[in-house]
Amino acid sequence: MKKERVLSGMQSSGKLHLGNLVGALSNWVALQEKYDCFYFVADWHALTTGYAHPEEIRGSTNDLLVNFIAAGLDPERSTIFIQSMVPQHAELHLLLSMITPLGWLERVPTYKEKQENLEERDLAMYGFLGYPVLQTADIVIYKARHVPVGIDQMPHLELSREIARRFNHLYRKNIFPDPEGLLTQFPKVTGLDGRKMSKSYDNAIYLSDAAEVVEHKILRTMKTDPARMRRTDKGDPEQSPVYQLHKVYSSPEELAEVAEGCRTAGIGCIDCKKMLIKNVLRALQPVWEKRNDLISNPDRLYEIARLGSEKAAAVAEATMEEVRHAMGLR
Amino acid sequence: MKKERVLSGMQSSGKLHLGNLVGALSNWVALQEKYDCFYFVADWHALTTGYAHPEEIRGSTNDLLVNFIAAGLDPERSTIFIQSMVPQHAELHLLLSMITPLGWLERVPTYKEKQENLEERDLAMYGFLGYPVLQTADIVIYKARHVPVGIDQMPHLELSREIARRFNHLYRKNIFPDPEGLLTQFPKVTGLDGRKMSKSYDNAIYLSDAAEVVEHKILRTMKTDPARMRRTDKGDPEQSPVYQLHKVYSSPEELAEVAEGCRTAGIGCIDCKKMLIKNVLRALQPVWEKRNDLISNPDRLYEIARLGSEKAAAVAEATMEEVRHAMGLR
Repeated sequence: MKKERVLSGMQSSGKLHLGNLVGALSNWVALQEKYDCFYFVADWHALTTGYAHPEEIRGSTNDLLVNFIAAGLDPERSTIFIQSMVPQHAELHLLLSMITPLGWLERVPTYKEKQENLEERDLAMYGFLGYPVLQTADIVIYKARHVPVGIDQMPHLELSREIARRFNHLYRKNIFPDPEGLLTQFPKVTGLDGRKMSKSYDNAIYLSDAAEVVEHKILRTMKTDPARMRRTDKGDPEQSPVYQLHKVYSSPEELAEVAEGCRTAGIGCIDCKKMLIKNVLRALQPVWEKRNDLISNPDRLYEIARLGSEKAAAVAEATMEEVRHAMGLR
Repeated sequence: MKKERVLSGMQSSGKLHLGNLVGALSNWVALQEKYDCFYFVADWHALTTGYAHPEEIRGSTNDLLVNFIAAGLDPERSTIFIQSMVPQHAELHLLLSMITPLGWLERVPTYKEKQENLEERDLAMYGFLGYPVLQTADIVIYKARHVPVGIDQMPHLELSREIARRFNHLYRKNIFPDPEGLLTQFPKVTGLDGRKMSKSYDNAIYLSDAAEVVEHKILRTMKTDPARMRRTDKGDPEQSPVYQLHKVYSSPEELAEVAEGCRTAGIGCIDCKKMLIKNVLRALQPVWEKRNDLISNPDRLYEIARLGSEKAAAVAEATMEEVRHAMGLR
């Protein structure tokens, strides 16, 4: 039986942290079992907010590809590629732009929001407004049925469905299937300060951090339950960011042990952190090994990107032939 | 000495008429002597207003290419191509969209105007707003120095210069030279009703009209000086659309003869029209012959488009390599 197609991408605008790994990436890895997966580094999307910082984009694209493979995406099973290496995306973006009402784009809730959140960058660009058109092209060019997204991305996906349907309707063809969101519950990863781990909060542990850096961040900067001012103060583990991260990285037995130790002051916060460090390092060890292996072998990395992009381009080109014909272009 | 590069395109949205031939196209033919010319059929641009009419676009693209060659564009000397066969234009359009301020596009004078003139079409599309971005990509991807344009296109060209400069400035490179408008005085071609010949006035003689149709249009529908109600009424040639077209197609001697005949009632309007018909048909004869030759040889036509598009794509790709690198993409 033919597997259904899944597509997802990540924008190359900065380093990945544990939240990205435990959230989106681990889910992508799991989806490889059941689906025909297309995963890509969205370097063109990174330009929508990062057009003024080309060096950042270049570095991130490479790092993201390394992390894809290190996290367990398998180039033999999945099609792993770089957006800008499949120029058909740009062509479909242009063609879909011709049929996408401006009003639909102006109403996207994240449009104004993102502009406000990134006030220091000038985002009143044509391409920034057209972000959802490019995203639609990314999805429908592979006729993907499932798109793993976070709940905040659902309005974009709804817009992609609208554009795809408008195309099918205008040209009386059924070229693009409706892309459906694939909502998955991810474990929430808590950052060093107790808020959600996020690059913009500066509270993250990055996949590219060395072991000493991870150790330092947890031991020296991660917050604990403020009630435990002294070693002998009893605490509430639920108030401690350290305990939240234990939930992701520690076994049920260890979890019970540190919770009990916190409540009874049976262990100190330093001990609790050391257990966490051990578990985090153990989880990251294989990822780091693969990262180092790939980083020291740039030719192999390039080859993975090239082969994946060729595979993707062949699928994209077949769709484009239908699209061009429908629009009267050849 | 290396010739400077000229670029121009025509949108494939309808048939060409004598006004287009005597105006833009004859100028393009003449420019071949002095410049390295790139001329293209802008089928993607046709989508900005014609996205809902794919069959029109398909037919027009073919017809326009036929007319290019029939009018005297020489595939051996000039690079003649179809926009959609050079996908690099779409890629550069996407990349330039990232740095083009929305406000610049909203202020283009033709933007609102065109929407109002084509009220029956729904033009509030993202791609319609981005028309000047695509036009900029068309020009700068070949680093063209000269762009033959009508006066009404000068604001678009000014915008192209602004976008090109913004790119050079943002990425501290001098990739795109400033494109300059090449304004030429064209003989004004009068339509059957005395207004400027134009598809939208329904007063045009088309290159694809058969000889009988041309004859019928001039003899039966073209207006004359209304003062000459009867054969014996004297007239003023300047009031006659027929005389205006004589100015384009007849010799100075004939022109003097019909002017005198009109003023003195020495000749009738029918005689005057018959002289015009003879001259128009003589001028169109070689164009029709080349048209028929090309239409009966679709393989050759396709080959011209393919070879020209390959030549164009090689130049475009070299520019794109610089652009991608500047923007941090490879």
